[in-house]
Amino acid sequence: MKLGLIGLGKMGFNLSLNMMDHGHEVVAYDINENAVKDISEKGAKGVHSYSDLIESLDTPRVLWLMIPAGTLIDKVLDDITPLLGEGDIIIEAGNSNYKDTLARYNKLKEKGIYYIDAGTSGGVSGARDGACYMIGGDQKAFSLVEPLFKDTAVEKGYHFTNEPAGGHFLKMVHNGIEYGMMASIAEGFDVLEKSQFDFDYEKVASVWSNGSVIRSWLMELTENAFSKDPKLDQIRGVMNSSGEGKWTVDTALELEVPTPVIALSLMMRYRSQEDDTFTGKVVAALRNEFGGHDIVKK
Amino acid sequence: MKLGLIGLGKMGFNLSLNMMDHGHEVVAYDINENAVKDISEKGAKGVHSYSDLIESLDTPRVLWLMIPAGTLIDKVLDDITPLLGEGDIIIEAGNSNYKDTLARYNKLKEKGIYYIDAGTSGGVSGARDGACYMIGGDQKAFSLVEPLFKDTAVEKGYHFTNEPAGGHFLKMVHNGIEYGMMASIAEGFDVLEKSQFDFDYEKVASVWSNGSVIRSWLMELTENAFSKDPKLDQIRGVMNSSGEGKWTVDTALELEVPTPVIALSLMMRYRSQEDDTFTGKVVAALRNEFGGHDIVKK
Repeated sequence: MKLGLIGLGKMGFNLSLNMMDHGHEVVAYDINENAVKDISEKGAKGVHSYSDLIESLDTPRVLWLMIPAGTLIDKVLDDITPLLGEGDIIIEAGNSNYKDTLARYNKLKEKGIYYIDAGTSGGVSGARDGACYMIGGDQKAFSLVEPLFKDTAVEKGYHFTNEPAGGHFLKMVHNGIEYGMMASIAEGFDVLEKSQFDFDYEKVASVWSNGSVIRSWLMELTENAFSKDPKLDQIRGVMNSSGEGKWTVDTALELEVPTPVIALSLMMRYRSQEDDTFTGKVVAALRNEFGGHDIVKK
Repeated sequence: MKLGLIGLGKMGFNLSLNMMDHGHEVVAYDINENAVKDISEKGAKGVHSYSDLIESLDTPRVLWLMIPAGTLIDKVLDDITPLLGEGDIIIEAGNSNYKDTLARYNKLKEKGIYYIDAGTSGGVSGARDGACYMIGGDQKAFSLVEPLFKDTAVEKGYHFTNEPAGGHFLKMVHNGIEYGMMASIAEGFDVLEKSQFDFDYEKVASVWSNGSVIRSWLMELTENAFSKDPKLDQIRGVMNSSGEGKWTVDTALELEVPTPVIALSLMMRYRSQEDDTFTGKVVAALRNEFGGHDIVKK
């Protein structure tokens, strides 16, 4: 089918290639003109304005947004919505907060525009060769665009929840689970590293990737990482995050769900971003106050 | 090759079948005579005493212990060691504590008997069709018995650490990681369950098993579980454990490694084993003491 794709970053560019591999016609727009030129050379129809984009599509128009979450989404929606008509479909496949998604869904519904939210997992290689989609929105609109998901996902790699914002909610929780799984794997290797044994971590991650209970894509990535740098000497243990783990914990607090493992995996990321902690200073000061215990001077 | 296998529980029985599939000659012993009879019917040579077992083997004798960890291992070792000679090899493939393994390795080394420790993962289906082994001990002995591991493991599913007790240490940490991964997955589904959305958990686990970052064998098992009981109505959320997660935390404390995620996944298992908590009573009492807040009466 024919669709308009807005956003040619790593994810959007590779997804466009994936869609064209499956016979879909991609009309592509990005603020970065080089990206538009590059994708045009790969067979897409590159356009340089929203009006050109919208005019190139048949009704009901299908637009796929692959842009960073946040206010940029609202800006793009404000720009394109006046150009769209009843029955058109917008698919938003970024990592948006599900509450924002629900608000956007309701706002567009008033204009008769369908808003489909898709949480996309699998990274850049997934976008290129087979992604994983968690999808929310209305059944009627989803049925029309299902081929796009089916064709660009791995086998069994998409699920329509039939709940507006359900896709982004699932993606949020997916990422929260990811934080906890990564922390568990990492803590395990930290125990190995401080033990009396001299293990080859690449080989350990390899055997754990083949036949063990903890085999997982993350363990395979762990093997890859150790194959490049056996003790990760070139990496500082600073764990940044991009928001969805925090939203999972925010949501758990709002719903009063005990999620200590996911919450602590997030907190330990924050801890890793500090060279020293005020918590540490306070505890050291108190030990000194009540017991005269030595403090480590700055 | 020919080996003596002691212990025909679910793991040992299935492993015997797996070994025989690969042309190995299994001489099998278990205290349970029915199990010996059953495995004999499958082609093993069943024996009813340790002396018959040892006499049936060629030197250097190879014995594979597949029995529950703990003092039973020491009892069996005490019984069979006097019947063994220099150069014989004992493989202990249970979930033993690595410190016990190291002590047994050193004791047997004095008698010239090789002691190989193997942590076995992959469950009963793994034992039958392809297991995952983390292996410790001496290189010389390992080289002699490597075919047994190679043939009964999945491809790339065994790793020899060249460290006495290294196999059991890795299996312990593997299980610690497993606790944290399971807790992360479970907490994520708990957020879904308490959310405003009505998700089909079997389908969610399925899409997360196909192409997502958190795809893993545990997520596939989650899908299986929800396919049998969509809301797990038939299960109480009591999380028992069999020791290795606790050993991982014990070891982390001993080595002073911060492992909050694994530790908390263990603590939450303990919490799940109580219907009510003394902690809860104390906090409720204190809130009542200082603020007159209501308590829930027993």
